[in-house]
Amino acid sequence: MSKRTFPLSKVYGVLESGPVVLMTTSSHDRPNVMTMSWHTMLEFEPPQIAMVISNRDFSYNALKSTGECVINLPSADLIDQVVICGNTTGAKIDKWAKAGLTPIAAEHVSAPLIKECFINLECKVIDKSMVNKYGLFVVEVVKAWKNTAIKNPKTLHHLGKGLFMVAGELIQTKSKMR
Amino acid sequence: MSKRTFPLSKVYGVLESGPVVLMTTSSHDRPNVMTMSWHTMLEFEPPQIAMVISNRDFSYNALKSTGECVINLPSADLIDQVVICGNTTGAKIDKWAKAGLTPIAAEHVSAPLIKECFINLECKVIDKSMVNKYGLFVVEVVKAWKNTAIKNPKTLHHLGKGLFMVAGELIQTKSKMR
Repeated sequence: MSKRTFPLSKVYGVLESGPVVLMTTSSHDRPNVMTMSWHTMLEFEPPQIAMVISNRDFSYNALKSTGECVINLPSADLIDQVVICGNTTGAKIDKWAKAGLTPIAAEHVSAPLIKECFINLECKVIDKSMVNKYGLFVVEVVKAWKNTAIKNPKTLHHLGKGLFMVAGELIQTKSKMR
Repeated sequence: MSKRTFPLSKVYGVLESGPVVLMTTSSHDRPNVMTMSWHTMLEFEPPQIAMVISNRDFSYNALKSTGECVINLPSADLIDQVVICGNTTGAKIDKWAKAGLTPIAAEHVSAPLIKECFINLECKVIDKSMVNKYGLFVVEVVKAWKNTAIKNPKTLHHLGKGLFMVAGELIQTKSKMR
């Protein structure tokens, strides 16, 4: 097992670039996974995230009722899995089998970590006040994992209609930004 | 003048990849600009965006009082300007002069477009109910502009502490995602 924890103070650095994530839930003992791009950091520490889920998505009710999820970051070589999880609905099929993804037990939430992803963030819903109006859930990260076996992972970023951008060149500036 | 309008239905495609943006406001006849990464799409059409601004930022009060802003997308060659606007405060200096950016009049809002940016989205605040608690403003895009003189712009994505990623390779999949 190559999953290792990392500090919650570093979570924003993996999300604020806007990567595609695979969001897992579990309801009625059945895990599900969906592809998601509409999320933003809300607070550095404890890390809080706002994420938008359509009420047409199967995961919407699971998240609303259980209040727990895992945000998993796929590297670019998982693009086929990302597309499968975005094109299908957990209401009809077992996405895990279809995409060849492996759920493993989380520590603090019922939703599973995705073994193949390089980052897994266990989250609890802390505010549902904008769920009915916007589908916006506020979650707090309670445990952060990285897969140390995956070297130099490149994030995926969705540009709409199945067009993806793979993370490119890095530039270190003298910015004072956190 | 090489700014041209484009359909509001296409706005999500320029924001859901999570690019760094330069957000402009204008208060007391004084335009300001800040660097921002914490935003997400909320709705496709009309395009609605949730964006998070600290109450320590000079732009926070300008946006709260005027209810208007422009979201501008800089291409990677504007990285120095992005860092300057992120490292300084409009409370103390004129960022436009310092960064060498040019404000031009918008059509529907008091905040200016940034001439040098390849996308400009004129926005109006439609929901302030989460501003006090999270600094989260909900805005709606009322007019979208692109600069047709800027060819193949590459977005910037912030990974924390001044480390930026430049948009890389594109992959078109057969996704049914919008």
